[in-house]
Amino acid sequence: MSDSVFITDDFLLENKCAQRLYHEYAAGMPILDFHSHLSPQSIASDGRWGNLAQIWLSDDHYKWRAMRSNGVPERFCTGNASDWEKFDQWAATVPFLLRNPLYDWTHLELARYFDISDRLLCRETAVGVWDETGRKLALPEFSCRALVKKARVTHICTTDDPVDSLTSHAMIAADESFGAVVLPTWRPDRALAIENVAEFNAWTDKLAAAADVEIRDFNSYIGALRKRHAFFHRAGCRLADHALDMIDAAGYTDKEVEAVFAKARSGMAPDAEGFAKFRSAMMYEFGIMNHEKGWTQQFHIGAMRCNSTRAALTVVPNTGADSIGDSGIARPLSRLLDRLDRTDQLAKTILYNINPRDNALL
Amino acid sequence: MSDSVFITDDFLLENKCAQRLYHEYAAGMPILDFHSHLSPQSIASDGRWGNLAQIWLSDDHYKWRAMRSNGVPERFCTGNASDWEKFDQWAATVPFLLRNPLYDWTHLELARYFDISDRLLCRETAVGVWDETGRKLALPEFSCRALVKKARVTHICTTDDPVDSLTSHAMIAADESFGAVVLPTWRPDRALAIENVAEFNAWTDKLAAAADVEIRDFNSYIGALRKRHAFFHRAGCRLADHALDMIDAAGYTDKEVEAVFAKARSGMAPDAEGFAKFRSAMMYEFGIMNHEKGWTQQFHIGAMRCNSTRAALTVVPNTGADSIGDSGIARPLSRLLDRLDRTDQLAKTILYNINPRDNALL
Amino acid sequence: MSDSVFITDDFLLENKCAQRLYHEYAAGMPILDFHSHLSPQSIASDGRWGNLAQIWLSDDHYKWRAMRSNGVPERFCTGNASDWEKFDQWAATVPFLLRNPLYDWTHLELARYFDISDRLLCRETAVGVWDETGRKLALPEFSCRALVKKARVTHICTTDDPVDSLTSHAMIAADESFGAVVLPTWRPDRALAIENVAEFNAWTDKLAAAADVEIRDFNSYIGALRKRHAFFHRAGCRLADHALDMIDAAGYTDKEVEAVFAKARSGMAPDAEGFAKFRSAMMYEFGIMNHEKGWTQQFHIGAMRCNSTRAALTVVPNTGADSIGDSGIARPLSRLLDRLDRTDQLAKTILYNINPRDNALL
Repeated sequence: MSDSVFITDDFLLENKCAQRLYHEYAAGMPILDFHSHLSPQSIASDGRWGNLAQIWLSDDHYKWRAMRSNGVPERFCTGNASDWEKFDQWAATVPFLLRNPLYDWTHLELARYFDISDRLLCRETAVGVWDETGRKLALPEFSCRALVKKARVTHICTTDDPVDSLTSHAMIAADESFGAVVLPTWRPDRALAIENVAEFNAWTDKLAAAADVEIRDFNSYIGALRKRHAFFHRAGCRLADHALDMIDAAGYTDKEVEAVFAKARSGMAPDAEGFAKFRSAMMYEFGIMNHEKGWTQQFHIGAMRCNSTRAALTVVPNTGADSIGDSGIARPLSRLLDRLDRTDQLAKTILYNINPRDNALL
Repeated sequence: MSDSVFITDDFLLENKCAQRLYHEYAAGMPILDFHSHLSPQSIASDGRWGNLAQIWLSDDHYKWRAMRSNGVPERFCTGNASDWEKFDQWAATVPFLLRNPLYDWTHLELARYFDISDRLLCRETAVGVWDETGRKLALPEFSCRALVKKARVTHICTTDDPVDSLTSHAMIAADESFGAVVLPTWRPDRALAIENVAEFNAWTDKLAAAADVEIRDFNSYIGALRKRHAFFHRAGCRLADHALDMIDAAGYTDKEVEAVFAKARSGMAPDAEGFAKFRSAMMYEFGIMNHEKGWTQQFHIGAMRCNSTRAALTVVPNTGADSIGDSGIARPLSRLLDRLDRTDQLAKTILYNINPRDNALL
Repeated sequence: MSDSVFITDDFLLENKCAQRLYHEYAAGMPILDFHSHLSPQSIASDGRWGNLAQIWLSDDHYKWRAMRSNGVPERFCTGNASDWEKFDQWAATVPFLLRNPLYDWTHLELARYFDISDRLLCRETAVGVWDETGRKLALPEFSCRALVKKARVTHICTTDDPVDSLTSHAMIAADESFGAVVLPTWRPDRALAIENVAEFNAWTDKLAAAADVEIRDFNSYIGALRKRHAFFHRAGCRLADHALDMIDAAGYTDKEVEAVFAKARSGMAPDAEGFAKFRSAMMYEFGIMNHEKGWTQQFHIGAMRCNSTRAALTVVPNTGADSIGDSGIARPLSRLLDRLDRTDQLAKTILYNINPRDNALL
């Protein structure tokens, strides 16, 4: 990387201690990627990408969010513009991302995977980068599995819905030619999303089918989830993953939660209080399941999702109209963890907080 | 500035990149001051200042706040002490302001405008600084307009109440001898301040007179504001400026807001819930007006004003008994912006947050 | 400290200015320790410690908290493991504390008091450190008073409950051989802790005995506290110290607070609203007392205590199941201070905030 303009060998390594720790210890280590959004289908089929837009922009809501912030119309984010047009808009956005990790990641990936470190991505360099990366992506060493190996990734934990059949995982596990271990992660966000009753009921029906359980009430709902939880466990899953925009630790009785569930199943949306009680109950039940199976649970906190009604109506849902939130989390989080700990049923727990103010160093 | 003790040529420029960016690019650029508290009267009359107290201390609540924190009696802040006594107290306060931007600004202004950089301001240096700056302030190059030019300011957006006649702006606009463009900014904080009913009603009467509209109800109130908004637009205003100590995005009906307004106009203070609904409605209405005219709206968030009842009773109101606040703003701000965006009526918006914890870098 | 591996002469002093300020000015200055948890009994009896576990681990909930976070069983924190076993577990925890002040303090104390700076504490070095420090602790220069003198501490303000007899303070004051001034601090947290009715009533009975006042109602409760406050003042106390996990500044009437107090005294727990009113009233009453006597009041904010029900039931209470909190404090704190300031009865106040996000630099 001798003529690198940005990604030098000591990129981000600001002193000798950091350089030594990275180059002598970390650089050669394998990566155990325990929270990944890589698609199991891509891994199973050893997917390929036709161009840089497909690998970078077809599925990355962080990049879409940055483009929208920069005023790029939705057509170029999630819409029907051509791959080249989307990439061209992304390239035009990159120079405005200085200090955003996307800026670093973009140039790190160009340098490490495509050996392009002599220029920064912007509108003027877009065509050259597009052509050069396009030629490389056609080579066998740019297949999904080849890239995973090149990155020294030995374990991948994907992100999976409880109703997922995990067929791709079965295919990957059956194929001994691929060195990396690929395991599912239990991500049951939709099991809590009772505020959108129509979607919730459609999902619950899928859950009933997947679990082969008749869901008549809250108890059989939890029963169906437990059955899927056990199925995930048999498929090698050892991680749960929960998006907690707000953490609820409301007091509730079984009767109250049963009533909220019944109301939602009859097609009526619960009120805010009922929603909080339901979420509180669900997080407790999931906590118990995760502990029983010896899993580790991951809580994503500090985000505020679905800020834009227009985006929710016109764009693919959950695709980037999100932001950092600032609501108080310590007290309800403490209550949730304490309730599970009281009976010694608190699973190992990883907290990810997206708000940098709460990650401030002393 | 060769014997400068603090404000060197590379003040705040900690590495070569910063020094190059400042000296080769930024230093010579014009300043477009789009949020200024400079008085339009001063500009219109090309005002002069008799001494450093008049230019620094007659109107700067940040300096008063610092003096009060240092135990200086109110008499020397907003009271009837002499100009010299006030400056002397300020000079005694400055050494305690290390790490506060006021410390940097004080010495930057002494260095850049008065060529005083060989000493720090404190009680011991106060007389010398007072005399030397006093002599200079008597020179023509220290008039209001001359200072604006010296700072290479080409545009100034002042801060103006909707009931203001904007006479000074008309005078400035008519006088072609002054190079800088001076424009009003729409700052309608008092239109929301319904909790102090007597002041609110007095202001609303002024609004009715300024707009020449009979204000009978909420609708005609908004009508009067719209008329003034249009008047500001004709005077060149393209910016609105809103102090949002707390952001309200409560649900409300037209009827509810009408009732709150009628109650206030009859002399009775609304309750906290009514106040929140009224503020929510006002911010929405202002948002619509700002978008219609293609303005940019500025939201000042993160402050907590009027902490001191004693100060509110005995001191000029809105003069520094303010602090940083820590209440949650993300959710109601998201709701307000989303409500305007839903119908594609969200104006360009600038957020200023005074709480450094929310401006933390990753 | 020439072969020091960590605590060098310029430890934490990152530039010449810092080094000069420390070595030329600060290093030789006396320490006035106005917030100390050192036990007055230890000072009175010039206590000794048999080993490093006794001086470091017998009473430091910060260290226990770190050990628990590292998975160390409670037996080695507050339980009946031997001193050596406890120290061994602490030594095993230290390497994981890098970036935590405990890491720095541990090695600073080893270097400055035990002259051990050639190694870092960890399981491998534990035996050596234990033996070497044990030999030194047996020497007279490691008695409580000798260590205080070696640290150049001239004033110590301990932390004392209003029901405390302050006998140790009287003994220390009567003994002129000890150079340092030792004064009590008024820490009346238990006077607010009405939510645990049984403990509150037992404590209130002790207060009645200590003050020799019959506590029949809220008024006589305040009267008893005032009597103890005056007793502390006579014993040299000039500081109050309040743990404010949450700050309450609810509106209340005397009648309401009287009713909450009466309910608690009759053995029934007040509800959350009553608790908030009671706390609000107590903080106001303490504020008035502190101002009357010309004391300085210290408010500890930003903590969230008693996160663990299991710890509260099985472990010594108030021993480390605490964390940083994130609830809003600016508004209620402003209300409390303003209420006292309105009548010019606001004592000098020191705020300690444990949440680093609120101490962020600009």
